[in-house]
Amino acid sequence: MLKNNVLPNNTLIPIKVISTGVALPSEKIEALALDKKLNKPAGYSFKRSGILYRYYANEDLNQADLAAQAINDALVRSSINPQSIDLLISSCAIPVQALPYNAAHILKASMLPKTLTTFDINCSCVSFICALQVAAGLLNSGTYKRIAIVSADLASRGLDWQDEESSLIFGDGAACAIVEKGNGTSGILSCLFETYPEGIELCEIRAGGTRCNVKTAMNESDFLFHMQGKQLFKLASLLIESYLHRLLMQANLTLEDIVTVIPHQASHLSLEHMRKRLKISNDRLIDIYRFRGNQVAASIPSALHEAIITQRFKPDDPAMLIGTAAGLTLGGMILLP
Amino acid sequence: MLKNNVLPNNTLIPIKVISTGVALPSEKIEALALDKKLNKPAGYSFKRSGILYRYYANEDLNQADLAAQAINDALVRSSINPQSIDLLISSCAIPVQALPYNAAHILKASMLPKTLTTFDINCSCVSFICALQVAAGLLNSGTYKRIAIVSADLASRGLDWQDEESSLIFGDGAACAIVEKGNGTSGILSCLFETYPEGIELCEIRAGGTRCNVKTAMNESDFLFHMQGKQLFKLASLLIESYLHRLLMQANLTLEDIVTVIPHQASHLSLEHMRKRLKISNDRLIDIYRFRGNQVAASIPSALHEAIITQRFKPDDPAMLIGTAAGLTLGGMILLP
Repeated sequence: MLKNNVLPNNTLIPIKVISTGVALPSEKIEALALDKKLNKPAGYSFKRSGILYRYYANEDLNQADLAAQAINDALVRSSINPQSIDLLISSCAIPVQALPYNAAHILKASMLPKTLTTFDINCSCVSFICALQVAAGLLNSGTYKRIAIVSADLASRGLDWQDEESSLIFGDGAACAIVEKGNGTSGILSCLFETYPEGIELCEIRAGGTRCNVKTAMNESDFLFHMQGKQLFKLASLLIESYLHRLLMQANLTLEDIVTVIPHQASHLSLEHMRKRLKISNDRLIDIYRFRGNQVAASIPSALHEAIITQRFKPDDPAMLIGTAAGLTLGGMILLP
Repeated sequence: MLKNNVLPNNTLIPIKVISTGVALPSEKIEALALDKKLNKPAGYSFKRSGILYRYYANEDLNQADLAAQAINDALVRSSINPQSIDLLISSCAIPVQALPYNAAHILKASMLPKTLTTFDINCSCVSFICALQVAAGLLNSGTYKRIAIVSADLASRGLDWQDEESSLIFGDGAACAIVEKGNGTSGILSCLFETYPEGIELCEIRAGGTRCNVKTAMNESDFLFHMQGKQLFKLASLLIESYLHRLLMQANLTLEDIVTVIPHQASHLSLEHMRKRLKISNDRLIDIYRFRGNQVAASIPSALHEAIITQRFKPDDPAMLIGTAAGLTLGGMILLP
């Protein structure tokens, strides 16, 4: 509960999450099955990754269809009329294709109004936090009234099975949040994004745009995730301490004021680091990693959905969304639900 | 000049363009040289495309570097300190690569502050208009004070020389606008985006994401622009009439109130259609097409820059940004400069 139940600095930017939903492919990959596939002893994959199972899309599943399922889940759970949505924001890290943008594909697959305003926000794995901030700006300038934000990523399409580190941690999925301006009691207490492009090559897929294509040069490896996990973790750990301080300062809060932490489900190691660093009890840290893996941009809204359905995202209880993303980018938001 | 010099409905959302800049690759492709290359009679390419020359990036030029040049041009032209920018939005249609997002690459190539907040907005060829709307929301909620928006596209990387229609019209380039909230006398009078996904396949590049890649299936053609120009023009022409009416209605204006029209430089045909439809004199329609071609998302901010340096974007004179984009998406904004 917020100290004295008053807003710090009166700087809250109103936004209210009125519903969330998720979608997962039907194919579940169990760690034990993976051990066999990789010809490793039972327990190896779980020990290395911290994941019991995660979900993979088969080749027929389209990223836009999975996104549309998550939107539908969010609509149905709160009995929201699809026709009442006046903006669809796609906040995926990796697109369906180079052109057109994702949200047009998602709109086509969805039951939302067929001429809806749509666009993409991309900030890698923290795209959803960024989309929330953008949505708050648009809601408060009166431009839109009810916005659906959806993140869907199919990391399996870029997995390099020769690279154990990345191939063991990613899972597919989608999640959606529907937001309104609300009555002013809920909103953004602080929001901070910092980009450290010196880490840009630590997590990347080089093909897909103007850099590696048929006109320049490309090879199969350019289509796969390249992650230098140790260096990524090292750089992120180095930066996160002072970053967190700045994020909290902006809200005039301390770590003790944060009731629920909703982190990007980056890796077993990153979640453990967060747990120790924030000295936070298990029930206050949303951790769905062992049943999902790292779902790229879909992780944070999926964790938000988990927080909501387990009653850990409640009025007056400040919640923190936080993550590190390919860029390298740190993104975080302190929300009053 | 606006009727009675008063704001219609008092619904202006403040935003002020304080500088713009452009960048072009060094290699210029003249229509006459193209005639020879294509083994056609002199004058053929110009007659077919309406383009005298356009610019192509050679293989060494990076999309992010071109974007950074445009940002620098905008900074230098108005003597703006790079350190005063607090947000960079990339509004390109096609990315540098699948991951990470464009703005991280552009930040790395630029002289902007190295930990700056960055993200991408994508709405194909009308991305820049969308980014302006998003920027206005963020400026008015007090989240940022001075935002650089940059669009850079290298269509040449996706040209299919077997397809005369698309290979003749695209050119490379970049443009940047720097915006602030301003003093409230300039801003958005209306803004409207409509998505018609039934036209999604009329302009696309199928590879680059989760749809066509090494895990599913792909061929060289998936990396190239596929444009069904006639059908695209037909669908857009069918929709634009009533769309324009809605855009103007929202601002409580008529076509006669619009002093300058800044259209997407989609094609010779689209600009002629706009000229006839709007019954607008040449000096009021910004047309840089014959010296640039269709620069994808970079066209609209490049045309805005042209309007500014030719004194056709002035206080009290409503200007209309408008375009059709792969999606199929219609986007437009009426701005009081």
